[in-house]
Amino acid sequence: MLPVAVDAMGGDNAPDAIVTGAKRAVEERGIPVVLVGRPEELGDTGGIEVIAASEVIAMDDDPGSSVRTMKDSSLVRAAEAVRDGVASSMVSAGNTGATMASALLRTGRIKGVSRPAIATAIPGPSGPPTVMLDSGANAECKPEWLVQFAQMGAVFARTRFDIDTPRVGLLSIGEEAGKGSPFVKESWGLLDAVDWSAQGAEFIGNVEGRDLMGDEVDVVVTDGFTGNVALKTLEGCAQNIMGSLLEAFDSSDEARAASAQLMPALLPLYQRFSADTYGGAMLLGTKGVCIISHGSSNDEAMVNAISVASEMVNSDLVGRIGEAVNA
Amino acid sequence: MLPVAVDAMGGDNAPDAIVTGAKRAVEERGIPVVLVGRPEELGDTGGIEVIAASEVIAMDDDPGSSVRTMKDSSLVRAAEAVRDGVASSMVSAGNTGATMASALLRTGRIKGVSRPAIATAIPGPSGPPTVMLDSGANAECKPEWLVQFAQMGAVFARTRFDIDTPRVGLLSIGEEAGKGSPFVKESWGLLDAVDWSAQGAEFIGNVEGRDLMGDEVDVVVTDGFTGNVALKTLEGCAQNIMGSLLEAFDSSDEARAASAQLMPALLPLYQRFSADTYGGAMLLGTKGVCIISHGSSNDEAMVNAISVASEMVNSDLVGRIGEAVNA
Repeated sequence: MLPVAVDAMGGDNAPDAIVTGAKRAVEERGIPVVLVGRPEELGDTGGIEVIAASEVIAMDDDPGSSVRTMKDSSLVRAAEAVRDGVASSMVSAGNTGATMASALLRTGRIKGVSRPAIATAIPGPSGPPTVMLDSGANAECKPEWLVQFAQMGAVFARTRFDIDTPRVGLLSIGEEAGKGSPFVKESWGLLDAVDWSAQGAEFIGNVEGRDLMGDEVDVVVTDGFTGNVALKTLEGCAQNIMGSLLEAFDSSDEARAASAQLMPALLPLYQRFSADTYGGAMLLGTKGVCIISHGSSNDEAMVNAISVASEMVNSDLVGRIGEAVNA
Repeated sequence: MLPVAVDAMGGDNAPDAIVTGAKRAVEERGIPVVLVGRPEELGDTGGIEVIAASEVIAMDDDPGSSVRTMKDSSLVRAAEAVRDGVASSMVSAGNTGATMASALLRTGRIKGVSRPAIATAIPGPSGPPTVMLDSGANAECKPEWLVQFAQMGAVFARTRFDIDTPRVGLLSIGEEAGKGSPFVKESWGLLDAVDWSAQGAEFIGNVEGRDLMGDEVDVVVTDGFTGNVALKTLEGCAQNIMGSLLEAFDSSDEARAASAQLMPALLPLYQRFSADTYGGAMLLGTKGVCIISHGSSNDEAMVNAISVASEMVNSDLVGRIGEAVNA
């Protein structure tokens, strides 16, 4: 089994948390890993092989030009490892746009795919998470791309979360078919015309922002602008409410004592809503499996991301997407 | 002082909660109110005058056609009361689109305003709420409308929340000026060209979804599609997290006892994040002050909405918006 290529230099906690996560993935889950980065900065890798790369694309570098010019960067080298059959897949908690650009430019698009999209798993209070795409790869989209996003998202929901017949919804501002922008109305028509039963999925029409955390829809498609706004709105909301709660829990001796008693009931909630549980977003539509982890990823998030990458390779996600898009 | 016209028939809890809220506004805050609706369904109004209206526009009726055809509806009659100088302003927890259409068609646009927009107050953990517009009036927008939204929003933030020099941000998917859709980039250029100091405001460039609940921006402008998606995403997120918490608090005798002890610390949080605290969204750009309350409004929400309507009339919000837009 080929190793997962892990960008050791990407993310707010790189390289320490990345290396620790990679070591844990090997030890605890038996997944082969290869680290990519500056060997002299990685410390003890516990015997994990390192692909040397001398450059680092920073979190705020321009994605397109950095990937073009920094050919010896850890991101570009990780994507090349996948392209060259040295690694099975790649994981990075670094610059999102540059991760996407590296994967796209080095491994290429799956035949028939117009545009890759970023799929995010959004947890809710119950049931499996909702897959939303595009979460930010394409700020402007054509309606026909959303049909492919729906096909790719349905394959991902089935492969990753064991949802037999994923229900696909179109993000809009009203549930009726006529609601939304002209772009959404046109997308609705194209999505409604697909034979979804042949794809093992179902199109349930428009859904709204409040459905993203609910149980009524499994895959939500939208353009990358709206999807990214929704995603960051969710993240901000969850962080702000959680932050306020933690402050309240710590506001007095009584509150501290009471919240300690509540911990057994609250911990599962924290795990469910934590960004680290799902390990990161998935780039769908490229020939190589590519996971884009949150910049703030800790070692736990990296273990999860590496596990998901490995699972998606074993389940032939790329092959299944190709079949769905070309059916 | 003219009374606030309250649509007694609109909202999930109409007419009971609406009538109770109206009575409380009169008794507790001394604000004159007139109810609009079917007199025989309102019960004891506590002496509050009623403008009779025989029809009710349902929550899911088509806004445009219902306002055109249901001329004796409570919404249309409420808007006419404002137009005819019988009431100072209107409040409804009914059909959002129909409330907007009634206000727009009966009271008209402020001179110079291209399109009215819905402004929502988004609470965060600290500081005054962030004003977001357009939250759903215009699914598709022109970049120049966003300049007016910014002007109207700045006036509203100053008048309603006492923010001296509101910081205006443009909702996008990256903070740098070049980030976003072509629509956002063009809007950025127009917003950046305005002399904001003459408007008593400041343009701080792009902001992201996670800033909506933060303290870095006071007014966020966006098209009505993106704004409505963001708003409903926020509402869904807050509801889901709160719901999960309440379930955890009620999951055992120990949890119930501990959460009872935490209540003094949690209640202020609940009040801060509750949709009822701000009474509803504000339609900006029409000649009459119009408040669009949440469909689920209780009597407390109605008291707050009626108070805000009265305050905004007393502060001449409409006149101030006219000055800002025509400066």
